[in-house]
Amino acid sequence: MILSALATSVGINLGLTVLLAAVYTLLRRRPPYVAVYSPRRPYAPPEPWLPAAWRRTEEDVHAAAGLDGVVFVRIFVFSIRVFTAAAVMGVGVLMPVNFLGDQLRQIDFSDLPNKSVDLFSVSNVQDGSNKLWLHFSAAYTITGITCYLLYYEYKYLSGKRLEYFTTSKPLPQHFTVLVRAIPVTGDGSVSDAVDKFFKEYHSSTYLSHTVVHQTGKLRRLLNDSENICTKLANLKSVRHTSGDPPRRFLGIFGRNDIVGKYQKRLEDLEENVRMEQSDATRSRQEVAAAFVSFRSRYGAANAIYIRQSDNPTVWQTEHAPDPHDVYWPFFSTSFMERWISKFIVFVASILLILVFLLVSAFVQGLTYMEQLEQWLPFLKNILEIAVVSQLVTGYLPSVILHFVSSYVPSIMKLFSTMQGFISVSGIERSACNKMLRFTIWSVFFANVLTGSVLGQLEIFYDPKEIPKRLAVLVPAQLFNVYSPKYDTGGRFWPIVHNGTIFSLVLMHIIAIGVFTLKKLPLASSLLVPLPVLTLLFNEYCRNRFLPIFEAYSTESLIKKDREEQSKPEMAEFFSNLVTAYSDPAMKPIQRSLNSDDRTTPLLSSA
Amino acid sequence: MILSALATSVGINLGLTVLLAAVYTLLRRRPPYVAVYSPRRPYAPPEPWLPAAWRRTEEDVHAAAGLDGVVFVRIFVFSIRVFTAAAVMGVGVLMPVNFLGDQLRQIDFSDLPNKSVDLFSVSNVQDGSNKLWLHFSAAYTITGITCYLLYYEYKYLSGKRLEYFTTSKPLPQHFTVLVRAIPVTGDGSVSDAVDKFFKEYHSSTYLSHTVVHQTGKLRRLLNDSENICTKLANLKSVRHTSGDPPRRFLGIFGRNDIVGKYQKRLEDLEENVRMEQSDATRSRQEVAAAFVSFRSRYGAANAIYIRQSDNPTVWQTEHAPDPHDVYWPFFSTSFMERWISKFIVFVASILLILVFLLVSAFVQGLTYMEQLEQWLPFLKNILEIAVVSQLVTGYLPSVILHFVSSYVPSIMKLFSTMQGFISVSGIERSACNKMLRFTIWSVFFANVLTGSVLGQLEIFYDPKEIPKRLAVLVPAQLFNVYSPKYDTGGRFWPIVHNGTIFSLVLMHIIAIGVFTLKKLPLASSLLVPLPVLTLLFNEYCRNRFLPIFEAYSTESLIKKDREEQSKPEMAEFFSNLVTAYSDPAMKPIQRSLNSDDRTTPLLSSA
Repeated sequence: MILSALATSVGINLGLTVLLAAVYTLLRRRPPYVAVYSPRRPYAPPEPWLPAAWRRTEEDVHAAAGLDGVVFVRIFVFSIRVFTAAAVMGVGVLMPVNFLGDQLRQIDFSDLPNKSVDLFSVSNVQDGSNKLWLHFSAAYTITGITCYLLYYEYKYLSGKRLEYFTTSKPLPQHFTVLVRAIPVTGDGSVSDAVDKFFKEYHSSTYLSHTVVHQTGKLRRLLNDSENICTKLANLKSVRHTSGDPPRRFLGIFGRNDIVGKYQKRLEDLEENVRMEQSDATRSRQEVAAAFVSFRSRYGAANAIYIRQSDNPTVWQTEHAPDPHDVYWPFFSTSFMERWISKFIVFVASILLILVFLLVSAFVQGLTYMEQLEQWLPFLKNILEIAVVSQLVTGYLPSVILHFVSSYVPSIMKLFSTMQGFISVSGIERSACNKMLRFTIWSVFFANVLTGSVLGQLEIFYDPKEIPKRLAVLVPAQLFNVYSPKYDTGGRFWPIVHNGTIFSLVLMHIIAIGVFTLKKLPLASSLLVPLPVLTLLFNEYCRNRFLPIFEAYSTESLIKKDREEQSKPEMAEFFSNLVTAYSDPAMKPIQRSLNSDDRTTPLLSSA
Repeated sequence: MILSALATSVGINLGLTVLLAAVYTLLRRRPPYVAVYSPRRPYAPPEPWLPAAWRRTEEDVHAAAGLDGVVFVRIFVFSIRVFTAAAVMGVGVLMPVNFLGDQLRQIDFSDLPNKSVDLFSVSNVQDGSNKLWLHFSAAYTITGITCYLLYYEYKYLSGKRLEYFTTSKPLPQHFTVLVRAIPVTGDGSVSDAVDKFFKEYHSSTYLSHTVVHQTGKLRRLLNDSENICTKLANLKSVRHTSGDPPRRFLGIFGRNDIVGKYQKRLEDLEENVRMEQSDATRSRQEVAAAFVSFRSRYGAANAIYIRQSDNPTVWQTEHAPDPHDVYWPFFSTSFMERWISKFIVFVASILLILVFLLVSAFVQGLTYMEQLEQWLPFLKNILEIAVVSQLVTGYLPSVILHFVSSYVPSIMKLFSTMQGFISVSGIERSACNKMLRFTIWSVFFANVLTGSVLGQLEIFYDPKEIPKRLAVLVPAQLFNVYSPKYDTGGRFWPIVHNGTIFSLVLMHIIAIGVFTLKKLPLASSLLVPLPVLTLLFNEYCRNRFLPIFEAYSTESLIKKDREEQSKPEMAEFFSNLVTAYSDPAMKPIQRSLNSDDRTTPLLSSA
């Protein structure tokens, strides 16, 4: 890649950003869009949105998007801080040093735009030069700054998570446990087994339970009936608003014929739904899983953290998700089933990485004009135009890569779904982790292995890449755009922390390699303690902070339980808790057609 | 190594075994030894001991040595089974095939004893020969048999562990939790902090606590006074039994002078002990750790499995060991201290492996006569005697290696002690794991790397080696010899399981390498699923059985608690429980001099 191609790429990206911001500013109050953004109106001041967005306090973000929103914003801030440190170091110190080196060729200022960016990389520094100690110091400094920032964020967010728990109103997920692999003896029902077990072993805290049912067929029927409802509503609105509807939409049938037909089908469907619902409740389609609710948070914690049965593969308990966060369609329950699907997903992930490696090897070829002209000789004339050439080598590769990789998150989500997670957030968190591994193995290694190795190393001095990639996948709970569907209490942060530690260690290993290649073995040896120290730091954080993100303590749980013991509103909460985890597909048809229980709107009305 | 040297080695080992067994048979009823073995007399029938030992049932072993004893015996049985399968396969099929190969040289039956053992190894099979498929099948067969045996044992021992728990009488360790890193506010004592915390958060189940004290100095004083007591007792017994004691033992002083002097010193020491004890109790030497006892097993489990404090580095809880199993001398408590010592131990372990690698590289040289004559030319004449030569190449290397490695377990125990384990069993289990890693890295890899690689590969077809090595370290709770000091409830088995899985996978990797070298790439490829399947099997066991060895379930705990609730003997048990975990060094001096609380005899009197 030559310098001017890089500049073109930067220019296009900047231009696109400004353009998109301008379009948003203009369109957000126009008729079709105002409906999308209006529910947030109370938070959106009349002044220009961009400066206002920058002025939002963390309390605003918390109120609008929960702790996950706060974590998301802080991931951005953390990335910007690390990137700033790396940029100051890189642009201010390393790049001038690299450029003034003479390993690659004598400096020729006359034709700067056509120079390869390699001139700015460590490749251009003379082998064994003492200037390399600047790169050595940079590795230590950036690691130090990043670890300090990581520690600071982890500590801050741990505090926030505890604070969030202490100030939260009673939430069903804190009182409820998901039980899987429920063993059923003889011809008893799952429901009876659950009741017997928890009345026996958790008599003082057990409140109620909801057995999960297979509702795939029901869900399909409900979807169909909903589609017809929408069509009917459209037809009716057309009739009301315009006196002479365009005939071509209705074809050869009259409007009333069609309405009647739809109404007939809708009635049939509703009858089917009712039959299917009563079938499901009559225990024939019970799944060996249930949501079990307790009278106290501590009671629920007892059921989660102490193994329930002598046989570890039955009565498996775990945290229940937020009721809105439950992923009903896929509810695999058996120990073996989940186990086999995990293995299949593992193999599929490896295959995906291999496919992506092939694609990116091809794309990498694009950055070398000569190769491209060789592959596609008929394009030679067009490619020789300067602007086209710069577009193709500087911008096209990243566009193709981004286009291809934009499909990866959905595939990863599909994989995580297959693994049997029972919450949307669980699926997304697992997909995040998969995405991280995918990014590391395909994007990073593919770049290094297929490109010129030394020339590409500089990207590793920039650990911001991983949080940035993650940010693409984290469900965009951005202020003013989406309403949060669920709240994980900030549990996305540890993934970002681990990703950053991984990229730091990767940077160290590569730096050790670079110093060896550059014939400065002393620097290589002196760099060895750095990954060890980084991993020790990570281990410390894992002991000090991670448990806070995994579970609440006895101290917190009991304090919170006691605080609420005597509150009058708890009676109502518990009576709601009994039905909080019932499958929306099992609710009576009248409600399900009118309410929006199954389809959360893009924006909540709060 | 040539064949006759191997035969010599086998012969000497067999001879030594017979000799030692004969000496034991003759001497075990003679005066100085009868005292050692007599307490087991009820179990030792008058008939010859060797056949009797073979006839013991598992119930006998359980009664005499606890579940750990049963596990130990089963480790032996498991090893013998795996070894038998491997031997049948190896001696019956592979060795003849190897020997009939002609890769190394043409067969010459005339001089068999001087043939190198390499003739019996896979090295001797022609490259690319179809006979190699026999080796391929052997890898699959041995893996299959071993995994089946592992599964069978794991299942059997899991059942035994549950049975053992259900039938056990109330044990202090099931009701007690060790709490470390207790935070003390202001000038309050550790004891007050513990009382406050557990009365607050475990009010219904909390029974009592015992704070740990620094008793290093006290322990030294008690040791000294005990030594003097022994000397005094000896002097007195000499006076009683013989009318004219040999003067030379008493030197120039009279007997009474010496007795008086000892008694004076003893009184001084006892005074010091008493002062030190009262100092320690007056909270000046409190350690931030305590044993906290509960009214029920389930109450204790609650305190262990649910994190106690919002800050994960304080109020850290873990299973309390058997009171006799507590390792009082070293009681490091702070989170950071334990953390740093872990790291130091890690570095020290690596250094130890490096040192051992050097030693074994030297020893390996001994098996090659030419090298030895080159190093020590003056020995040439002696070495040329046939017997000496066979001794040196066949027997000496293993003797030296065994001699050197006999020191390793004690070093590993020292390392584990430094890591801050608080029970003897914990130290020994951790030392077991370290020993396993050490064996793998030093003995196995050193052999392979320093010897002729292909010639040494055969040893990997024999996964019995690791359980055998472990057996050396497991505290020899052998029937008729030692009384068990503590009981871990069979928690040594998972280590053996993991070690066996590791050696299987190592065998697979090496077999893949061998088939590649032997130019049978198809066999290499078809062997790849084997380690994957083995690891999946291991993962299954880890999910299915390991939790049973780590903790008891709610089901077991509550059942057991309820069973005993109304028993009258529980009142006495609880009153004893309050003092069960008091440091023996803190007990009043009168008792400590006469009882054997601190010094368990080699055999219990049961």
